[in-house]
Amino acid sequence: MKLQLIALPGAEDRADSLATLLGVTSCVLDHRRFPDGETYLRVAGAVAGDSIAVVATLRDPDPQVPALLFLADALRELGAVRVGLIAPYLPYMRQDTRFRPGEAVTSRSFAKLVSRSFDWLVTADPHLHRYASLRALYDIPATVVDSAPAIAEWVRREVERPAIIGPDAESARWVAEVARQVGCPFAVLEKHRHGDLDIDQSLPDLAPLRGRTPVLVDDIIATAHSMAGAVRLLRSDGFAPPVCIGVHALFSGDADAVLRATGAAHVVSCNTVPHPSNAIDLVPSLAYATRDLALHGAVMP
Amino acid sequence: MKLQLIALPGAEDRADSLATLLGVTSCVLDHRRFPDGETYLRVAGAVAGDSIAVVATLRDPDPQVPALLFLADALRELGAVRVGLIAPYLPYMRQDTRFRPGEAVTSRSFAKLVSRSFDWLVTADPHLHRYASLRALYDIPATVVDSAPAIAEWVRREVERPAIIGPDAESARWVAEVARQVGCPFAVLEKHRHGDLDIDQSLPDLAPLRGRTPVLVDDIIATAHSMAGAVRLLRSDGFAPPVCIGVHALFSGDADAVLRATGAAHVVSCNTVPHPSNAIDLVPSLAYATRDLALHGAVMP
Repeated sequence: MKLQLIALPGAEDRADSLATLLGVTSCVLDHRRFPDGETYLRVAGAVAGDSIAVVATLRDPDPQVPALLFLADALRELGAVRVGLIAPYLPYMRQDTRFRPGEAVTSRSFAKLVSRSFDWLVTADPHLHRYASLRALYDIPATVVDSAPAIAEWVRREVERPAIIGPDAESARWVAEVARQVGCPFAVLEKHRHGDLDIDQSLPDLAPLRGRTPVLVDDIIATAHSMAGAVRLLRSDGFAPPVCIGVHALFSGDADAVLRATGAAHVVSCNTVPHPSNAIDLVPSLAYATRDLALHGAVMP
Repeated sequence: MKLQLIALPGAEDRADSLATLLGVTSCVLDHRRFPDGETYLRVAGAVAGDSIAVVATLRDPDPQVPALLFLADALRELGAVRVGLIAPYLPYMRQDTRFRPGEAVTSRSFAKLVSRSFDWLVTADPHLHRYASLRALYDIPATVVDSAPAIAEWVRREVERPAIIGPDAESARWVAEVARQVGCPFAVLEKHRHGDLDIDQSLPDLAPLRGRTPVLVDDIIATAHSMAGAVRLLRSDGFAPPVCIGVHALFSGDADAVLRATGAAHVVSCNTVPHPSNAIDLVPSLAYATRDLALHGAVMP
């Protein structure tokens, strides 16, 4: 069985890098919109008998969802034997329960759509909070690429005397893991969320971190309010300008400006969502995970 | 079992008119987008034990598809007994075969998504070309509202000495039916489509229509190139300024301006897609079809 990659619009660069690392070809997808907004798709190559990995950049997912599902159908009709999804950023992980009566638990509905259309899923560090793992949500084999080793390697190479700091308790797990791999101290700030934009943060005892360069690490930088609050808190407490690292650089609205205004030393991200801050390469890990699921059907531990 | 309506954003007015005609209540849907483009939905009312009709205006469907499917899931989780869809304009009917190798047959994929999420479907005059009926495509009971009676009534009331004219062969069926109900002659122009925008039209023998006001009728006005070409052809052949009627007023891009520039007398449409040209009311027919499917599970012939 031969593996081929095919990219949704916006994911062509990631697909090309993955294809090069995997030593396989990319199949071209013709994509356009009709004047009334409907999607036209054409798979411009033979896929019969092959294992196909669809590569998608799912920041701002809604307008892409029909194309994603239509493409999976088309690939199967055209004879593809296995059809998987490489979504370096997996959306719809945050509404993981019904916080108020009547809410749609979109994480479940989105997972159901993907699980019905694809045979397997590869992603990087999904926002797991109330779900223990993707198995609790997705009915298909899913491999999660851990960004901690690549982040730790970047910090070791680029930051002198670092201290890893998480902007809130949700970031505690990977802040501890990155710090362990870097071999440096860490701390986690406390955050009280009153709404999308209304957040308090407070400082724990940071004495052991004095004299070090703070490296803030979070999984998602969206509005950047949480990261910006942490930068200001550390600066007002006498720390050097922090380095800000986000796994997924969503950067909605004026997030770039908000973060620049705080006087952060650097803002860097993993390359799961295309953004000028991309500096930490997860493509090799995504390629490794893909080879296994696409060709052997094995689920990595 | 109680019937309630709930509207996706943009369909609130249609839902209110339908609710009034049906003598039922509308349930409010809270809808917003998170900063990164994900959909938030909350059903702000009790639906347990009820039959729910979702009303959606599906022009420019792609960004709405996730909300449509998530809402159906949420309604079921909240205890709705039946969940149906009122889509006065049904999108994704035009790619009804694989014109070139590798194309996604989006009509099939879209129908599958809707059929999995909803128990029944009510729509008005879908663009049936290669499919004989919606039964060939949708796995759920589907009732099609016929726009011909309402169009014929409007023409009888508003146009003196009309002649119904179809801009192409695809419009032949309902041009003949509207003309029969109006009690006037009709003709169908011939169209040769070379692409989305590249269309030739030619004139049949129009002698029996001389001295009448031409009323062009088509199912979809999208770019309006086809309708505009027909207006110019009739004008250059000496006819009075035509009345243009579209069932579904998609009006993409500069369609409004294109059609105005031809010197058409009036441009009117059915109210399946909200547009200033809406003048022909299909809401009573949609309400009638809905009552049957939502409350009794019957499929209309």
